[in-house]
Amino acid sequence: MATILGRELPDTVDGYGEVTPFKGACREGGVKTRKAVKLTSVNPHEQKVLDNLEQVFDKLNLKDGMTISFHHHLRNGDYVLNMVVDGLAKRGLKDLTVAASSIFPIHEPLVTHIENGVVTGLVANYISGPVAEAISKGKLKKPAIMQTHGGRARAIESGDLQIDVAFIAAPTADNYGNINGVYGDAACGTLGYAMADAEYADKTVAITDHLVPFPACPIQISQVFVDYVVQVESIGDAKGIVSGTTKITKDPVALIIAKRAAEVIKASGLVKDGMSFQTGAGGTSLAVAAELKDIMQREGVVGSFAAGGVTGYLVEMLEEGLFKTLFDVQCFDLKAISSFRNNSTHQAMSASMYGNPHTKGAVVNCLDIMILGATEIDTEFNVNVTTSSSGMIMGGSGGHSDTAAGAKLSIVVTNLMKARLPIIKDKVTTITTPGESIDVVVTERGIAVNPRRTDLIEKLRQANVPLLTIEELKIIAEKITGVPKTVQTLEKIVAVVEYRDGSVIDVVRQVY
Amino acid sequence: MATILGRELPDTVDGYGEVTPFKGACREGGVKTRKAVKLTSVNPHEQKVLDNLEQVFDKLNLKDGMTISFHHHLRNGDYVLNMVVDGLAKRGLKDLTVAASSIFPIHEPLVTHIENGVVTGLVANYISGPVAEAISKGKLKKPAIMQTHGGRARAIESGDLQIDVAFIAAPTADNYGNINGVYGDAACGTLGYAMADAEYADKTVAITDHLVPFPACPIQISQVFVDYVVQVESIGDAKGIVSGTTKITKDPVALIIAKRAAEVIKASGLVKDGMSFQTGAGGTSLAVAAELKDIMQREGVVGSFAAGGVTGYLVEMLEEGLFKTLFDVQCFDLKAISSFRNNSTHQAMSASMYGNPHTKGAVVNCLDIMILGATEIDTEFNVNVTTSSSGMIMGGSGGHSDTAAGAKLSIVVTNLMKARLPIIKDKVTTITTPGESIDVVVTERGIAVNPRRTDLIEKLRQANVPLLTIEELKIIAEKITGVPKTVQTLEKIVAVVEYRDGSVIDVVRQVY
Repeated sequence: MATILGRELPDTVDGYGEVTPFKGACREGGVKTRKAVKLTSVNPHEQKVLDNLEQVFDKLNLKDGMTISFHHHLRNGDYVLNMVVDGLAKRGLKDLTVAASSIFPIHEPLVTHIENGVVTGLVANYISGPVAEAISKGKLKKPAIMQTHGGRARAIESGDLQIDVAFIAAPTADNYGNINGVYGDAACGTLGYAMADAEYADKTVAITDHLVPFPACPIQISQVFVDYVVQVESIGDAKGIVSGTTKITKDPVALIIAKRAAEVIKASGLVKDGMSFQTGAGGTSLAVAAELKDIMQREGVVGSFAAGGVTGYLVEMLEEGLFKTLFDVQCFDLKAISSFRNNSTHQAMSASMYGNPHTKGAVVNCLDIMILGATEIDTEFNVNVTTSSSGMIMGGSGGHSDTAAGAKLSIVVTNLMKARLPIIKDKVTTITTPGESIDVVVTERGIAVNPRRTDLIEKLRQANVPLLTIEELKIIAEKITGVPKTVQTLEKIVAVVEYRDGSVIDVVRQVY
Repeated sequence: MATILGRELPDTVDGYGEVTPFKGACREGGVKTRKAVKLTSVNPHEQKVLDNLEQVFDKLNLKDGMTISFHHHLRNGDYVLNMVVDGLAKRGLKDLTVAASSIFPIHEPLVTHIENGVVTGLVANYISGPVAEAISKGKLKKPAIMQTHGGRARAIESGDLQIDVAFIAAPTADNYGNINGVYGDAACGTLGYAMADAEYADKTVAITDHLVPFPACPIQISQVFVDYVVQVESIGDAKGIVSGTTKITKDPVALIIAKRAAEVIKASGLVKDGMSFQTGAGGTSLAVAAELKDIMQREGVVGSFAAGGVTGYLVEMLEEGLFKTLFDVQCFDLKAISSFRNNSTHQAMSASMYGNPHTKGAVVNCLDIMILGATEIDTEFNVNVTTSSSGMIMGGSGGHSDTAAGAKLSIVVTNLMKARLPIIKDKVTTITTPGESIDVVVTERGIAVNPRRTDLIEKLRQANVPLLTIEELKIIAEKITGVPKTVQTLEKIVAVVEYRDGSVIDVVRQVY
């Protein structure tokens, strides 16, 4: 069995089940289902606040093999996932599946729980650090399931990912379970990745270190979805949650790439009133935003929205009137948090509204221009942001595949070589995002446009933007670096990479 | 078969089905279900805007017997319900069920559609005017189903009320279906009653007269729930939507009632920091709010929230710092709309968050003090706000039963006599709200406390608040008015009155 991209897949994967091979982006319209939810109704005068996590555990129907979920808005400052899994381990639970929207280095204690059989399944959109390494080395009993931000919301809402208990790290919560992320020591801004968990889990627990009198204000997650509230000493380390500053790269190579990307954007004809834009928080991506800002200011263009994980840089563009509004699924820095708290045109979106392909239209569908990164790209424009060139898991799609599928113009910006290795290959180690969703690759040595986009090639030629083929780019790099050896892996499948619709686009195998 | 309140009910009602008799407020905790939803996913680059209502009808799978829904935020200024039903009638559709959160005099054209068999079913929380009269006279083929605001949300979310198409009157909408109620000629403020419809209907159509560039800001109903958007000339008459001013009664009798209610509230011990309060928009209710405001100011009390349909008077209390926040399911006047638009502590709530008993805790559960009206009260404290004393439908529960069930102290304020008829009777014509949820009846001639509330009776006695029994109040009135004759009706059941949990608390029979 193979995907439409030619990746060979087994019919079934032990610990995952039947494999539906990837058949193409946006192939499926038609009728989809949001699943039914069982909930325990709360009568007047019943209370939700419990004294400590142990009391919460006592209330829950804990059982081996259950799935517990977490959001990653506290990023590398998150204390909640470790706190809960440690507690469940102490109670002797086994075979847990941890469904966390992302896993960071701070979640290293999970490795011990994986080794001890407390955690045997993991579902996440992004995994970095020791847990990623442990998975790559085959330590997790079942293959990890790697989803996209929109795909995770789809999986939860459709019932493909059934959550027994959602533990919501709540920077602020009141005694009836209303939650926001804008106040408290662990303020993180929007809570986009936690919405589907709260609404669709069998039980939802708010864990907070900032319990406020009823009602919390604003309310980002409503009391109607929350079963229990518990206060703990601290839910996270502010230093790990936000960077505090957003910096554009000073690297001259990256600045060249950004300038070229801006030329592509300008030539595409998309820079006009009502345009929309998204970029990540990386230095090069922000440099593209800076270039775009110049163009918009020069041409007097007012965009409709910028979206995504939001940085202070996008906030500045909002405040300068370059965009009318922001759509924010997660705040990346203090400036974004503060803006979201105070500026009503800085709007939150759930992960589902952001990128779930099985809604009546996610925000990614409305995107004009998307700036993406890549670890590897192949000559079919398939992108890997899941594994390193040695095959080790070091990331994941996040919103990569979602935004690439939705945007009118998706541009990968990357150095042509990194650490003496060429980025463009015949085959990427792991396919995260299919080439059909990638329109342009911009490097410091040249620009390649996906041959499917004949319209765009025509526009760039008319604007005298020099183009190469992706094969030419590959040759340029290989002349310098040589042709790298193909990565050798073991047979064991350690992770299944799901496309946003739930089909399998690739698998990751155990590294040596 | 009889309800716990002794009302005889048939086992089944033609055109309604099996009857579950009312067994008591909040009797059912336990596991409830939010239903699964089928939706048609929208892929990138698909459009939602259609040119006119006819194009919308062409897209929909119209069929005889379907259920279409509407919200009532445009109240007696609503053009959308008539526009849609007229259009469907022209297409020859029959046997439609109109599920509107409320029906007003402006919906008089429905009477013709009822007479012609275009509309044979009606589900609403409040019905006044010619449609109410037509139902009472037996013109509607099936019995109307009269729900509560929270009960309607429950019915929609559980699947008891299956909506084929929700037509959302949208004061502002963008081309991808994001909706708000705060801008546009027909601005009405919050859209609390439309939320469940938009999320749970098979198809959702936004009908707007203010189509704005993407994205609308703020977003109250998200694009992910909306299939189609259509612009029309006008969705409503601003004069019918809001009153523009909120007036406290000048009637001396009503002011006496308000003063007495305030004494009860004060003696109850509930006036303290963190208290919560809700009242309707009637003159007497607002006079109670004014009395409460005096007490709160004198005693330096800061409440947590005021809730409900929100008037300018509650806005003033918010702005004066007497409450920290408002929970607003519907704005009653221009001041409330403006406040909701500009003040982030003036928070919206959906009907489900407001009063759905089958969530993890509605806002009514958090209410301390609720001020209610009544058309009739019986000596068991059962309240009728559904029919007049002649048996004609002239209202409905709205949030009456929801708030009464949730509040710690629910007070009915009413003149002891209206139009030479006594308000207190042995049996009310129709039971809307069960007596177990009503704590106190305050009239100009005296105060009666529900005997169940021995704690409250004790407190009021200690505060030297003079009390009568409800029977004594009844006798006082009857001495002046005489004992009114029992209403005679025909056998035919013209409406089924559902309690908030979906059980049947009473039926309304055809008037002569």
